Amino acid sequence: MQSNSEHTPLESSYLKQLQAICQQSGQVLYQPADCLPYGCDNSKQYALPDAVVLVQTHEEVMAVVKLCRKHHLPITPRGRGTNTTGAAVPIHGGVVVSLEKMDRILELDTTNRTLRVQPGVTNQAIQDYCASHRLFWPPDPGSAAYCTVGGNLACNAAGPRALKYGTTRDNTLRLKAVAGTGETLKTGALTTKSVAGLDLTRLLIGSEGTLAIITEAVLQLRSLPPCTQTLQLGYATVEDALQAVCDIMQQYETPSAIEFLDDTCVELLRQHSELHIDKNINAMLIVEADGSEAAVSEAIETIHSAAKNDRLCHSRRATQPSVAESLWSARKMLSPVLRNFKPCKINEDIVVPISALVELVHNIRIINERYQVNIVNFGHAGNGNLHVNILYHPEQEEKAQQALADIFSLVLKLNGSISGEHGIGLSKRNALAQELDSNTINIMRELTRVLDPDDILNSGKALPP
Amino acid sequence: MQSNSEHTPLESSYLKQLQAICQQSGQVLYQPADCLPYGCDNSKQYALPDAVVLVQTHEEVMAVVKLCRKHHLPITPRGRGTNTTGAAVPIHGGVVVSLEKMDRILELDTTNRTLRVQPGVTNQAIQDYCASHRLFWPPDPGSAAYCTVGGNLACNAAGPRALKYGTTRDNTLRLKAVAGTGETLKTGALTTKSVAGLDLTRLLIGSEGTLAIITEAVLQLRSLPPCTQTLQLGYATVEDALQAVCDIMQQYETPSAIEFLDDTCVELLRQHSELHIDKNINAMLIVEADGSEAAVSEAIETIHSAAKNDRLCHSRRATQPSVAESLWSARKMLSPVLRNFKPCKINEDIVVPISALVELVHNIRIINERYQVNIVNFGHAGNGNLHVNILYHPEQEEKAQQALADIFSLVLKLNGSISGEHGIGLSKRNALAQELDSNTINIMRELTRVLDPDDILNSGKALPP
Repeated sequence: MQSNSEHTPLESSYLKQLQAICQQSGQVLYQPADCLPYGCDNSKQYALPDAVVLVQTHEEVMAVVKLCRKHHLPITPRGRGTNTTGAAVPIHGGVVVSLEKMDRILELDTTNRTLRVQPGVTNQAIQDYCASHRLFWPPDPGSAAYCTVGGNLACNAAGPRALKYGTTRDNTLRLKAVAGTGETLKTGALTTKSVAGLDLTRLLIGSEGTLAIITEAVLQLRSLPPCTQTLQLGYATVEDALQAVCDIMQQYETPSAIEFLDDTCVELLRQHSELHIDKNINAMLIVEADGSEAAVSEAIETIHSAAKNDRLCHSRRATQPSVAESLWSARKMLSPVLRNFKPCKINEDIVVPISALVELVHNIRIINERYQVNIVNFGHAGNGNLHVNILYHPEQEEKAQQALADIFSLVLKLNGSISGEHGIGLSKRNALAQELDSNTINIMRELTRVLDPDDILNSGKALPP
Repeated sequence: MQSNSEHTPLESSYLKQLQAICQQSGQVLYQPADCLPYGCDNSKQYALPDAVVLVQTHEEVMAVVKLCRKHHLPITPRGRGTNTTGAAVPIHGGVVVSLEKMDRILELDTTNRTLRVQPGVTNQAIQDYCASHRLFWPPDPGSAAYCTVGGNLACNAAGPRALKYGTTRDNTLRLKAVAGTGETLKTGALTTKSVAGLDLTRLLIGSEGTLAIITEAVLQLRSLPPCTQTLQLGYATVEDALQAVCDIMQQYETPSAIEFLDDTCVELLRQHSELHIDKNINAMLIVEADGSEAAVSEAIETIHSAAKNDRLCHSRRATQPSVAESLWSARKMLSPVLRNFKPCKINEDIVVPISALVELVHNIRIINERYQVNIVNFGHAGNGNLHVNILYHPEQEEKAQQALADIFSLVLKLNGSISGEHGIGLSKRNALAQELDSNTINIMRELTRVLDPDDILNSGKALPP
């Protein structure tokens, strides 16, 4: 067996024990060529694991964790590796526990609108299955087609719909998991209210696999809205569009999404999409409302009134699904198109109170000029959550990193948070130490040690060094 | 200084130190007559504390906790003592830390719809203040006029509106607190999304003062709905009404409340309220929808259609606020009226998946017959959360307790939880050991020890013995 040269190779006795654990259903990979695809995630960081265990059951996960704990082998839990922060990169080598084969939808309860699933099911598979029962699960990350629900739980994933329906944390009732001790945890309740013991469900959600490996989840579903309408709003300036976000959020109706696109994004859509966008438009909002037909028509009117200001140049109401789809596909095209813009891209997901959006973007423009990179902003403005993309050439790496550090400082000055939905992983550990005070970080560290006393689960992630 | 005979009296040196801590603004009570009102809560359990500290600042709370930790003195944090489970009873004597004087509303942010408050503000004071800005905070416990937001946070309080808007846990952004270590914790973020570190906010909420004493909270507010309508639905049987709850919850519109009243409650309303209720009606639902005017009218139609079954005897739509108010005041009258029914009352807040409501109430009737007590059920049926009231004479105490034990077993058999919104406190510690497995309880206990290493904060509450 070969192994990553940076790490002690996995002793063959461990390998045999892993294989023994998996002899019923799971599978163990140990050839570097086989392990290679499990060494990276969407952060482009990389480290080769010593072995990959493709588990199939809760009991296999327990046995693997117990074995690794006994021999102090690091474990990196993994869904499909769409994470953007390096949280799924096996930086210490050791064993990747891949949940991708635990991909079954176990039980739909239409009366209580719950779905019991294994962690390896993709978000899209859940949406497709639910839609056939006129139901949906709110979290809708851009990577829905590829990312797993286990990953959504690990990072507290969200997406545009979080504005009205909340994040993964707000839409999950119960978890079954294996702690770093090797013990089984059952958290939460099957009811929409419960105050029985500490809230371990929400503690595990967003903990990036550092506390436990989730092997089963009960998701809270909602009924599909009978009607959805979308508004395309074009503004003269970025500031006008962001002021409109605040104005829209002051009225009663909570839209199911408010997505913001800055001047560069608008220009990209002019070039790459079928949308017609007037030349005086330099920023756009895509606003969606859902509900019953009468409610949506009224909501769109109300939202439109609130969104109007002197610099609203163009508005278009998409009542037809095909028109709305073209708008959304234009929005979703942005992230991949940006990859072609410059060779290097840092994609952040900072979040500020919506009242600070104008100041945020104004100051990001100053940072942009200071370091002469290209910073492009779009995203879930209704939550104050913007995807700030720093685009640059390889030789500008240092400047890009300085720009990023300035952006984090700016966000914290504006009472924001460095991650709205991607998590901390490897990339934002240092920045997290700026957001949280040391007492609170120490408490988080000690809480982690309760569930993972030997620091074997995704060690070196999610909390500051 | 006199003290509770069961406990070592507070040494006068400690008392002097407490007084020194509070010399700026706080106050220390130590005479038994002064301490007396701080010995009980709404559970009717009682224990005299050695001293009561009426703190005024975060720094005073820190100093008190540090002093008590140094000398191993038990602390019982307290709002206004409306808790029904004994969570606010100082069972080990020691020091009651009363937050009632920390009752200031600190900062309203209308753009971000947040409110920063001290823990001693009453829920009603928050609602009144917010209403003047066309805003509200969703948690609406029956005790709103008396209970504090600190107590709401400690127990994860809810109420009828939780059906649409969630509980305290779903509507709180950030906490400032003093852990059992005496250290300051700052949890959460000022944004509606954040994945920065572990979710300590929701861990503290519902922990009944066993982890930390909350000294400040940032609440997430919502815009007041422009329109509210209420439906009064009378059914021939309790089963018909509970079946209708499931039918209502299957359609798209989530009502802002679905309250259930069983046959005894209906009879009580006939006798004690101004409502006219036909004699063939043996169960009632009060259903509320809120939103824009058009949306509410359509929602009420949809809900009404779903609620119709063969045994719906009577329905009345209350479009006028005065009619709705009379319905709600009748509903709110139930709990106090029941107190006059028989001398003793156990009021539980069990919760089951809504699909199990019919079976739950059917089996509670069997339990009622078995023990010959009077069990009356009403409450937040849309969440499956019923207030099960066992009414009995003092000589029936044992039978009432047996009935309660049978009800808890029944609830757990139906995949429910023993507390929907009141919490565990002293009263339900044993029952909690039936709901949670021992691994999970041990993990909760160890997590508690991280924040309160010397077990001084509300010791002997919230988790099984």
